[in-house]
Amino acid sequence: MDINKFFEPESIAIVGASRDPNKVGSAVLKNLIITFRGKIFPINPFVDELQGLKVYKSVLNVKEKIDIAVISVPADLVLNILRECERAKIPLAVILSAGFNEIGGEGTKREEAIKKFLVKSKIRIIGPNCLGIINTDPHFNATFLDPNSKVVKGYAGFISQSGALLSAIVDDASMNNIGFSKIISIGNATDISEADVINAFKTDEKTKVLALYLEGLNNGDAFLKAGISFSQEKPLLILKGGKFQSSSTAVSSHTGSMAGNYKAYELAFDRMGAISVDNIDDLFNFMRDAPNIKINSDEVIIVTNAGGAGVVTTDHLVSSGLRLASFSDKLLNELGKTLPKEANIHNPVDMVGDATPERYRDTLEILVQQNKPIIILFSPQEMSQPLETAKQIYEIHEKHPTVPFLSVFLGGARVDKARKFLLERNMPIYEYPNEAVSMIKGLYSYYSHRTQTFKAISKEKTRYRDFRLKGDTFGISAKRIFDSIGIKSVEGAIVTSQKELDKLSDKIGYPCVLKIESNLLAHKNKVGAVIIGIKDRKALDDAFAGLLKITKEQKLNRASFGLYEDVNKFGENKLEILLGAHRDPQFGPMIALGLGGIFANELNDSMFFLSPISDQSINELKTSRLGRIITQFTSENIFDELISYMLKLDKFMNANRNVKDVDLNPIIIVNDKLFATDFKIFI
Amino acid sequence: MDINKFFEPESIAIVGASRDPNKVGSAVLKNLIITFRGKIFPINPFVDELQGLKVYKSVLNVKEKIDIAVISVPADLVLNILRECERAKIPLAVILSAGFNEIGGEGTKREEAIKKFLVKSKIRIIGPNCLGIINTDPHFNATFLDPNSKVVKGYAGFISQSGALLSAIVDDASMNNIGFSKIISIGNATDISEADVINAFKTDEKTKVLALYLEGLNNGDAFLKAGISFSQEKPLLILKGGKFQSSSTAVSSHTGSMAGNYKAYELAFDRMGAISVDNIDDLFNFMRDAPNIKINSDEVIIVTNAGGAGVVTTDHLVSSGLRLASFSDKLLNELGKTLPKEANIHNPVDMVGDATPERYRDTLEILVQQNKPIIILFSPQEMSQPLETAKQIYEIHEKHPTVPFLSVFLGGARVDKARKFLLERNMPIYEYPNEAVSMIKGLYSYYSHRTQTFKAISKEKTRYRDFRLKGDTFGISAKRIFDSIGIKSVEGAIVTSQKELDKLSDKIGYPCVLKIESNLLAHKNKVGAVIIGIKDRKALDDAFAGLLKITKEQKLNRASFGLYEDVNKFGENKLEILLGAHRDPQFGPMIALGLGGIFANELNDSMFFLSPISDQSINELKTSRLGRIITQFTSENIFDELISYMLKLDKFMNANRNVKDVDLNPIIIVNDKLFATDFKIFI
Repeated sequence: MDINKFFEPESIAIVGASRDPNKVGSAVLKNLIITFRGKIFPINPFVDELQGLKVYKSVLNVKEKIDIAVISVPADLVLNILRECERAKIPLAVILSAGFNEIGGEGTKREEAIKKFLVKSKIRIIGPNCLGIINTDPHFNATFLDPNSKVVKGYAGFISQSGALLSAIVDDASMNNIGFSKIISIGNATDISEADVINAFKTDEKTKVLALYLEGLNNGDAFLKAGISFSQEKPLLILKGGKFQSSSTAVSSHTGSMAGNYKAYELAFDRMGAISVDNIDDLFNFMRDAPNIKINSDEVIIVTNAGGAGVVTTDHLVSSGLRLASFSDKLLNELGKTLPKEANIHNPVDMVGDATPERYRDTLEILVQQNKPIIILFSPQEMSQPLETAKQIYEIHEKHPTVPFLSVFLGGARVDKARKFLLERNMPIYEYPNEAVSMIKGLYSYYSHRTQTFKAISKEKTRYRDFRLKGDTFGISAKRIFDSIGIKSVEGAIVTSQKELDKLSDKIGYPCVLKIESNLLAHKNKVGAVIIGIKDRKALDDAFAGLLKITKEQKLNRASFGLYEDVNKFGENKLEILLGAHRDPQFGPMIALGLGGIFANELNDSMFFLSPISDQSINELKTSRLGRIITQFTSENIFDELISYMLKLDKFMNANRNVKDVDLNPIIIVNDKLFATDFKIFI
Repeated sequence: MDINKFFEPESIAIVGASRDPNKVGSAVLKNLIITFRGKIFPINPFVDELQGLKVYKSVLNVKEKIDIAVISVPADLVLNILRECERAKIPLAVILSAGFNEIGGEGTKREEAIKKFLVKSKIRIIGPNCLGIINTDPHFNATFLDPNSKVVKGYAGFISQSGALLSAIVDDASMNNIGFSKIISIGNATDISEADVINAFKTDEKTKVLALYLEGLNNGDAFLKAGISFSQEKPLLILKGGKFQSSSTAVSSHTGSMAGNYKAYELAFDRMGAISVDNIDDLFNFMRDAPNIKINSDEVIIVTNAGGAGVVTTDHLVSSGLRLASFSDKLLNELGKTLPKEANIHNPVDMVGDATPERYRDTLEILVQQNKPIIILFSPQEMSQPLETAKQIYEIHEKHPTVPFLSVFLGGARVDKARKFLLERNMPIYEYPNEAVSMIKGLYSYYSHRTQTFKAISKEKTRYRDFRLKGDTFGISAKRIFDSIGIKSVEGAIVTSQKELDKLSDKIGYPCVLKIESNLLAHKNKVGAVIIGIKDRKALDDAFAGLLKITKEQKLNRASFGLYEDVNKFGENKLEILLGAHRDPQFGPMIALGLGGIFANELNDSMFFLSPISDQSINELKTSRLGRIITQFTSENIFDELISYMLKLDKFMNANRNVKDVDLNPIIIVNDKLFATDFKIFI
């Protein structure tokens, strides 16, 4: 589908055009009259003329070709209007009307009806419940934004799931020197989705960077694909709203509740190589500057005329995980010759307070040799010449356009002209050092992601079986499943009677563990339903008798018992690991690895991996804090085996699509061996 | 000392007044001529007249009283000038000249000479190496700031250790509607210190909030006391530079290196109740608004005309550790009656896009009943009336002045007048939601700190002994020290020969641990110098023979061996805890508690407590993640015993002032018992 057609219409009909200036149908007409050079057909059965234009009773009365119908009628009339549009052979409709899925009940029914209609219709729609769309070249504004809001032409595309946030951002953007290529308020995305629009922006030559305000999604998979493909071409910025909303359904298992509802989005943005921004301020900076600087290194040079500013910037840098570049002797030598004695020639380079524009120039001429990002700090001091300094910065940059320059001019009125000078020349310029650091951080991760090729790991060619589980599965029943896919666990067997116990006790050996195997017992340890360190046959019989008693007390009618090896027999020095999986409704399985046992509850810092697990993310695991703990504790072989378990669990989740969560907590590493000891599968 | 005299002089001499417009002595004279209504005496032996004023050859030639001498002569002349000032009975000098401690070598000698002079002199000085001082009421500017920089009169005091950062902030402040009461560039603080100045600002009625840019300190103790006392009266804001500079001397022990050089500052700011800000942007917001809002709760109400903005604000709120206030049925009922059907009456309250000024008014009238901070979001939409809305907000606030209102007007040109309207009335108003959230977070913590009384814990009345340790002390020698102060540890003894081993082996019992006790072996485990789980006499003899061999291989001439109980004999299920101490050069001892063993290296998230440990911080420990892990694992008694060890270590550090670091890692909790198992004291 080519939705670029939406952006170069020759004629637009406004269905629901209104004479009441407080109505959407009036504002959108006014915006079109101001901006659109094609033909405009207002539609309203009760009016003859609006804002100087002839009004038609229906789209069917217009005898000319209509490229887009903008629909702004009460929700319950929308479907009928769409039918008329179809008969009038209008290919595209933008539905501004609200009163659909977002209000639930009747609204949801209305939206379902539209979906049903769309299956058989050729017409494509944006919305409903949206603000409309804007193109700046050729210009047309088919929204009900306040006609006084100025939309400046530029290179940033913008997609918003919130109409109100969009209107605030458009209003603020012009003050921040941000121009737009195209703007789409996506609304409920009943037909044309976020993924469709991202794909369209990808091939749009007028868009050099795309910003997206996102709250939720209908189709995570398509979104992920579109995002991955887009990011290979241009920077994709995402501001995610609703990170901390509690999800509507309680999540049953541990791994699930640790994941929350934002974790999968975070992993997806990461896989896409999108730049995830935390606030509107950063969003603006990236929209304006991302197309203009390519960050090639996480080693940064800071140069300043104010020591304190250099110190503050270094703090921001280090706390962001970036590094100060170190200088070669040759470079230090050159800086020493150029700068006065009181200067600091090491990074952050302090040219001291009386730095002239020429000193900025000479110092930068030396520093550009490193070909690394340079944060140029300027603090207005007695001798400073802000505008002249800005000019020198610009000229050096013209000579060395591939070296990223990020200027920070501290201060107010005195540096205003200098800031404006750089801004007008598309040079990144900020008011505070932390902004420059955020830019480098975001764009470094963006560009290093682009140079990596994503490689899913699948050493095993085996296709995994769908076990067609009918319900939550715990204990020995779950253990058998993991045994069959090659996740090694302690020996164990189900015991239902004293007789079976007699038979099995010798096979498992001592010490052993006896547990009540029941889905109904949420906190086994609390009621004493797990007995560990059973040393001999006598103790085992006692344990069995004790657990039988508990099953009666807890009224568990058909209790069975699990008899397991006690891992303590393999050694005393153990590390407990949590291995788990959670299926995100949008993005599918995630595998979790973390410290297990009581740490899993409280540290809550397991790492998550989106399926399919990639080479890249395994490398990240190995160099992470968790990776270092495991490496300190055990051999490379065991770590590799643990990783192979992650991959097996990944495949298991993909083959068993009704499984929601898996918890293997803890997996025990002891004396260079690895055993799963507890098994839970949630459907 | 009353340094307020500095701020109401009747006459000022400028020693080093210059005709060269590029010199400091020219700029400061110009600033004084523009701003100062008292008498000005330029001093320069080679000039007769400057900027229309008569010039004197020396302060001694001025026959009138001089209140302040501002000194701007080359560094090597400063001491002589000070002597002249003393003879002229000038009580106060502000030394602008650089070339002292900050450049090392000769400079340090010069500063030492001044210090020596000051011991016997009555003269007090600010500086050297500073930008000068400013008062706005009565007005005088005795700095060499650019005379074009506008310093607006207001209620924020400002102390800066960086002259350049100060000049940038002064320049930017007027654009951000921030006025100053007094500004002090403190320079090297050779005489008058940060603490002195903070104390002076405390009693200054024109200062309602104090901002401090800090890189380092000479006297942590005085600073802490001044800060604690100041914060009880007015908000103290600190922007700390140099958080991540690597300290110049490598820190020897574990606890020390985990602490870094910022940790003690962080704890000190916390104890002072200061508001620690991360960037200049936040600093400005707090300087402007902190005196105008008192935040009384961490439960916040959000009200918006744009759902998306409410969602984004909620995210910022939750990720800051604040909470959404919940509403009573009565309140919900009232909101339901007032707001249209499509509105969301739960927090965040969404009044929907067509919210009029009157709807803002009516909704706020209901919400103020809660008496909790309200973030009022406004997004410029089609029907919005920004200025009218601002007026309504202001009027409601006039009626309910104790309810904190924080307005966020998103957008640009359309909301400009509304922002200005609120700004002019000292109403907190921001461009982005995260700013409002930062304000609430910082001020809530400030006001809740003010209501707490700090109570150091000292259950034990014992005075601790100074062991007068001569060097680093490890193993059994260190264990004896901790035994004597009541920190329980495993049994242990020193073994130097086979004969001693024969005697001791039965006393310690099995299993046991044998270690080489040497300061020279950095990584005992790596070379196999620790043998655990020794099960019987035979194994012990083998272990001893093995370690003897290692001491020879490692060329340890006078090695001794430590024989300890193996904690595994007390049970299998163990939790390893790190207890440590580190002496900060500025703020004295800090006690560390964290997860021990391999976790201490990698998790690196031990909690630190500044000495003396307070009731308050023990409560924080108990409800922390670490506290929850310990509580899950063991009984309250054991946790209390562990806390008593922290207090003992605190007292030990205070009695043994040459001890730099202590590491007790791990302390083992097993079967409701507690044992220290490894002992290190660094001098």
